[in-house]
Amino acid sequence: MTTMQILEAARSAKRAVALADAAQKNEALLAMADAILRQQEEILAANREDLEAAKGTVSDVMLDRLALSPARLEGMAQGIREVVALPDPVGAVLMREERPNGLVIERRAVPMGVIAIIYESRPNVTSDAAALALKSGSACVLRCGKEAWRSSFAIVKALRSGLAEAGLPEAAVSLVEDTTRQSANELMTAVGYVDLLIPRGGAGLIRACVENARVPVIQTGTGICHVYVDAAADQEMALSIIENAKTSRPSVCNAEEVCLVSRAVAAEFLPKLREVLAEKREAAGKQPVELRLDEEALAIIPGIPAGAEDFDTEFLDYKLAVHVVADVEEAISHIAAHSTGHSDAIITKDEAAAARFVAAVDSAAVYVNASTRFTDGGEFGLGCEMGISTQKLHARGPMGLRELCCYKYVILGSGQIR
Amino acid sequence: MTTMQILEAARSAKRAVALADAAQKNEALLAMADAILRQQEEILAANREDLEAAKGTVSDVMLDRLALSPARLEGMAQGIREVVALPDPVGAVLMREERPNGLVIERRAVPMGVIAIIYESRPNVTSDAAALALKSGSACVLRCGKEAWRSSFAIVKALRSGLAEAGLPEAAVSLVEDTTRQSANELMTAVGYVDLLIPRGGAGLIRACVENARVPVIQTGTGICHVYVDAAADQEMALSIIENAKTSRPSVCNAEEVCLVSRAVAAEFLPKLREVLAEKREAAGKQPVELRLDEEALAIIPGIPAGAEDFDTEFLDYKLAVHVVADVEEAISHIAAHSTGHSDAIITKDEAAAARFVAAVDSAAVYVNASTRFTDGGEFGLGCEMGISTQKLHARGPMGLRELCCYKYVILGSGQIR
Repeated sequence: MTTMQILEAARSAKRAVALADAAQKNEALLAMADAILRQQEEILAANREDLEAAKGTVSDVMLDRLALSPARLEGMAQGIREVVALPDPVGAVLMREERPNGLVIERRAVPMGVIAIIYESRPNVTSDAAALALKSGSACVLRCGKEAWRSSFAIVKALRSGLAEAGLPEAAVSLVEDTTRQSANELMTAVGYVDLLIPRGGAGLIRACVENARVPVIQTGTGICHVYVDAAADQEMALSIIENAKTSRPSVCNAEEVCLVSRAVAAEFLPKLREVLAEKREAAGKQPVELRLDEEALAIIPGIPAGAEDFDTEFLDYKLAVHVVADVEEAISHIAAHSTGHSDAIITKDEAAAARFVAAVDSAAVYVNASTRFTDGGEFGLGCEMGISTQKLHARGPMGLRELCCYKYVILGSGQIR
Repeated sequence: MTTMQILEAARSAKRAVALADAAQKNEALLAMADAILRQQEEILAANREDLEAAKGTVSDVMLDRLALSPARLEGMAQGIREVVALPDPVGAVLMREERPNGLVIERRAVPMGVIAIIYESRPNVTSDAAALALKSGSACVLRCGKEAWRSSFAIVKALRSGLAEAGLPEAAVSLVEDTTRQSANELMTAVGYVDLLIPRGGAGLIRACVENARVPVIQTGTGICHVYVDAAADQEMALSIIENAKTSRPSVCNAEEVCLVSRAVAAEFLPKLREVLAEKREAAGKQPVELRLDEEALAIIPGIPAGAEDFDTEFLDYKLAVHVVADVEEAISHIAAHSTGHSDAIITKDEAAAARFVAAVDSAAVYVNASTRFTDGGEFGLGCEMGISTQKLHARGPMGLRELCCYKYVILGSGQIR
């Protein structure tokens, strides 16, 4: 089918999905999970073809992301089953008011309609995204990277058989067949078909969506996250948080990329930072963190001189840019100029500095004395997430089922006129 | 100043506005209202120049919208004072949860930052929009139509003197000096400067924003609103609601444009509809409503044959398209195909039909037995509005102060790592 035909079918399916009750959606989700396991031979065979075709053209990291196994399929099925357990967000009455004229006005949570998701090479996003969209009452149109297409198609085939078993339209979950740039552009400009577009991927994809999309978009992901070590920081806590934020999983968007250090403690703190991130890790056989230091830091500890671009780079690697600042105000200004608005932290025992930082830093998640790595739907108690929004419109931070819905006003009258 | 210089200044002002407390914002608003009245001679002189220049080039309706008077300025000042009385939306804790690991996670309402508003020829939008943006904690950049520029500039000058009196940066409210298409395009593409763009105006402006904007946009306004008269309608109620929805103010977006009538009652209802909207109004010396009838309606009452485009037109005039449908399901399908998602109503005593209509119609405001004319911030109890959103992302229906804000997560820890 062409992308437009797929969009037409999704739009036709959206009312049935929106009106399905929690029991029917949960029945479909359980059938989808079962179908993934039942059809695992087909899915794994498709995945082997994807891997074969990708070999030599992509990095080993990419190949690993692409690879499926019975255990990974079991994980995907389990992920779908976890969505069953989440409360249905649709229909929640968010506000109810009786006006003096007797009109009863309710604000009710309703589904978006058709959610399009453009992603790259991880086939598990296929089932995750479909399960979340379905539970939120929306049809979804998925568009994966070409490396993962055969795997994703086999997964979608399984998911659709689960939908059919529960009496929901198969077009509630679709995979775009065209993996060229054209299909991405078609989704970005499908006004009237796509109610929400979520790009999940690298900075290039996000930028292309912002520049080209005419449908509503939620930008996700890019995280240049800062940790500011205040003059009044508990330095042991700061070291523990920074090591966690930088090294526990450097490839994710909530990992720290920049460390800001108060001038008042830089001479004392920076040698300890280097010891924890570089020397001790090296001695323990772990990958050391490469420090990219501004001039002032470089006068205190050895490291690589930071270029200006290092403070605007999402390394996603064992690299950390370090900048010495005068105080919390300069930290706030630096973050305002360089942050992507994802997650930024202050480490301090000074309540006034913490309050100032929290009020002035305009990011989706602002931390006091904790690791930026907690910016995650599960960690925030949302149960799941479709991605982490770095924009301000509609949703900010991890997007759970509620954030995948919108609302409408329902006005119940008895003949009122104005 | 160039548009970019104005945007730079607004961005520099946004933190001060965001951090201003309710008392300081209210002080500024009162000073802004006073300044409008104190500087009324200058404003009225500028308005006379605008009127002089516009004469002959725009319609009388436009000239009336453009014209200011001491009474209208008093109304503008009063409008600003009413915003003082509204609760400050900034800082509200929307959610607070302590996680098992001891992290306290709050979701707090925060300002958007810089709100750009593109509007046309009504100078009062200048003060309305500025007051709402300020109270919501955002700086605003206003871009009015060229006919209203001199008036708007004089108003902004007054507003800025009020801001300065209260110690807030004047750049919290700015008017773009360039009134060519270029400045609108600059605002639409000012990524990193404009946090939210609200176009207030006709369908052409909205379309240009959807097509060209790279910054987040909230579409407002276009309303092709439907009233469906069900088989089980109280027909007297239906007539009263339709007359109100169509004729109380035909030029506004929440006015009815299309009447759908159940086939079961069409032969009985349509003659009464014609009597109320055409004959009686004519006899009373009021402007009659021109009925554009589909074939089936035309077989019952006289009128103008409707063309297909009549069901996709926002008349904003004493015109009503009439279409006979089989039942509530066909009404829902017609609305899905032709509505702009603004306000749609069902008139019925049948609770099942009402529930089905409410569940299936995907519009910002869905009415049972009331006039679509109630879609308005004041009528919904929001106290004010910046426009009526017809999109799903972020805000739907009337946008009050809460809808002009976003939120961020604040996470308070004691050294937690993941």
